[in-house]
Amino acid sequence: DPSLKVFTLNSNKALAEEIARHIGVSLGKNSVMRFSDGEVQINIEESIRGCDVYLIQSTSAPANEHLMELLIMIDAVKRASARTINIVMPYYGYARQDRKARAREPITAKLVANLLETAGATRVLTIDLHATQIQGFFDIPVDQLMGVPILSDYFSSKGLDDIVVVSPDHGGVVRARKMADRLKAPIAIIDKRRPRPNVSEVMNIVGNIEGKTAIIIDDIIDTAGTITLAANALVEQGAKEVYACCTHPVLSGPAVDRIRNSKIKELVVTNTIDLDEEKKGANITELSVAELMAEAIIRVHEDASVSTLFD
Amino acid sequence: DPSLKVFTLNSNKALAEEIARHIGVSLGKNSVMRFSDGEVQINIEESIRGCDVYLIQSTSAPANEHLMELLIMIDAVKRASARTINIVMPYYGYARQDRKARAREPITAKLVANLLETAGATRVLTIDLHATQIQGFFDIPVDQLMGVPILSDYFSSKGLDDIVVVSPDHGGVVRARKMADRLKAPIAIIDKRRPRPNVSEVMNIVGNIEGKTAIIIDDIIDTAGTITLAANALVEQGAKEVYACCTHPVLSGPAVDRIRNSKIKELVVTNTIDLDEEKKGANITELSVAELMAEAIIRVHEDASVSTLFD
Ligand SMILES: Nc1ncnc2c1ncn2[C@@H]1O[C@H](COP(=O)(O)O)[C@@H](O)[C@H]1O
Ligand SMILES: Nc1ncnc2c1ncn2[C@@H]1O[C@H](COP(=O)(O)O)[C@@H](O)[C@H]1O
Repeated sequence: DPSLKVFTLNSNKALAEEIARHIGVSLGKNSVMRFSDGEVQINIEESIRGCDVYLIQSTSAPANEHLMELLIMIDAVKRASARTINIVMPYYGYARQDRKARAREPITAKLVANLLETAGATRVLTIDLHATQIQGFFDIPVDQLMGVPILSDYFSSKGLDDIVVVSPDHGGVVRARKMADRLKAPIAIIDKRRPRPNVSEVMNIVGNIEGKTAIIIDDIIDTAGTITLAANALVEQGAKEVYACCTHPVLSGPAVDRIRNSKIKELVVTNTIDLDEEKKGANITELSVAELMAEAIIRVHEDASVSTLFD
Repeated sequence: DPSLKVFTLNSNKALAEEIARHIGVSLGKNSVMRFSDGEVQINIEESIRGCDVYLIQSTSAPANEHLMELLIMIDAVKRASARTINIVMPYYGYARQDRKARAREPITAKLVANLLETAGATRVLTIDLHATQIQGFFDIPVDQLMGVPILSDYFSSKGLDDIVVVSPDHGGVVRARKMADRLKAPIAIIDKRRPRPNVSEVMNIVGNIEGKTAIIIDDIIDTAGTITLAANALVEQGAKEVYACCTHPVLSGPAVDRIRNSKIKELVVTNTIDLDEEKKGANITELSVAELMAEAIIRVHEDASVSTLFD
C-alpha cells in the first residue's frame, strides 16, 4: 500500500528497520542532522502528500533530544501534507512524572502528551505505559501493546519448571498475574517495608518461593536497585534461582553493575530502548518487539482492532 | 512588590542574578536537576500562587535541553497557580528555522512558539529576534528589546573617529542603519556574490570605507565564516581597522579560532548567551543586557510600554 510510510529518527534505528521489514516496506527517506550549534535539522526526502505516516521514535535517553527530534519531524510531516501522523513510541519517556507527588511539581507526562498533539500527532501506538492513565492525557487515540506475551513466551521456551512469578511491588501485581497465567504458575509479591524510621527496608515476601525458580517482572528497570535487592532476598529466603525481566531496559547509572553483581541469573528485556553495546552484558537477553509493532501498524492502517493482538 | 517573582533555569544564571539585583528582588527558589536517566526534574520551592512569574531562560545550546527545561518549568508554574507566566528569553533558539527554505522542511521557530503557548506561557520578552515575523508566530504578546543601543553606546565610549558601520548582508541594513544613526556615521554594505557557478564568492563592498574604522554589526554570529571573511575584505580594500559586534554570540564550531585568526581587532557581544570561559578570548568583549531586561520586566509588570525604553 503506497499510502503507508514508515520513518524513523535516532532512538531505535535497528528496531525500525526490523519493523519495516516485517511490514514489507522500506523506511522512508529523511535526514536528521545537526547544525553547527547543535540545533536539529530535519528534511524529508520523498513526497508524503496524502499518506499515512508512521514515525518510530522512543523518548529514551537522551529524552529531551529524542523528544525534540520527534516534535520537529512531526512539524515537517504536517507541513508536507500527510493525511495522518501516527507516533510509534515503543518507550514513552517522562512516564514516571505522571502526577504531582509533591507540591509545585510539573506533570511532565501530560506536558509531553500536549506537545505531541500540538505538533500535529493524530494517533499514538506504544507498549506498556508506566501508568495506564497516561492514555487519558491525550485527546487522540492511544493504542497500548503489551510486553508480557513476548517475555512469557521466551520463558516458556526455556522449559523451566516449578516457576513462581514475582512482582517487585504492589503496583506490579496485575502484570505479574498476566505472566503467571501464561506460564500456569503462581505469583509472589515483594512487600517492602521500613519497620521503624531510619531503619533500612525489609524485603518481606508474600507467597511461597521455597525451592522454586523465581521470575521477577517489572515494566521499567532503571537503576536496578529494587530488582537486585529483591533477587538477593528471594535467594536468601529459599528460591532455587532467580530470573528478571522487563519491557523497558532504561538501565541508567549503576544498573548494569548491580545486575552483574546480583543473584540474577539472566535479565530478559525487549528492544523498546536501544541497548548500548557496553550494556549488552553476558546475562542480558534482548527480545524484539518488531513483529508485534509491525502487526499493530498494519492493523491500525487497516482500521482493525489492535487489542485482539493479545487474544 | 511581592507578586513579582523571577526564576531562572540553567542557560543564563549569572545574567538572571544580575537582572534580579537590578529589579531589587531575590531569585525565586527552584531546583532543576536530573534523574539518573537524564530526565529533567524540577521543583518550585516557594509559593507562587497568584503571582506574576518571570522565567529567564535562553534556548541557546544545548537548545533542546534548555527548551525542555523551560517547558517543564512553565508546566510546574502553571500547576502552582501563578497568575501570569512571562518568558524572558534573551536568545530565541531555532529562530533561523523560520520558513520552509526547501520542500518538506519543518518551521521549528513556529513549533517552538506553539510549544511555549501550549505549556502555558502568557507573554514573551526577548531581544533581537532573528526575524521580526517570529512575533507573529505567537498568539500572546511578544515584546522585543534591541541590542543596538547597548552596542552603540560601547563604541561611542571608545572615542573612535571616522567610523563606518557595515552590514554583512542586505538583510542587516536596517540594523546597521540604526547603529549608524546613533554613532552619527555612514554605512556600507557587503554585497556577497558568486560571479559564476563554482567560483568562490566575492566580497563586493558598497559604500566608502577607505581609511575608516569599520564596525560590522550582525544579530547572530554563529560559525563566524561570513563576518571574518568580511573583516578581511574590509582591511584588504582599505579600511584602517575593523571591529565586529552582535547581540547573540552563538560562536559554534570554528568560530572562536576564526575570529582569533582574522583581522577583527575586537568582537563585542552581549550576554544573551552565556559564553564558556574558553570562548572569552582576549579580543571578545561582553556587555550586559541585565539593566535593559530588568527595566523591561518592571515596565511589563507595571503595564507600561516597553518600546519607550528606546526613546
Ligand atoms: N526519570 C525518573 N527517574 C526516577 N524517578 C522518577 C523519574 N521520573 C519521575 N520520577 C519519580 O518517580 C516517582 C513515580 O514513580 P512510580 O511510583 O514508579 O510511578 C515520582 O515520585 C517521580 O518524581
Ligand atoms: N541552527 C542553524 N545553524 C545554521 N543554519 C541554520 C540553523 N537553523 C536554520 N538554519 C538555516 O539558515 C537559513 C536561514 O538563515 P537566514 O537566511 O540567516 O535567516 C535556512 O536555510 C535554515 O535552514
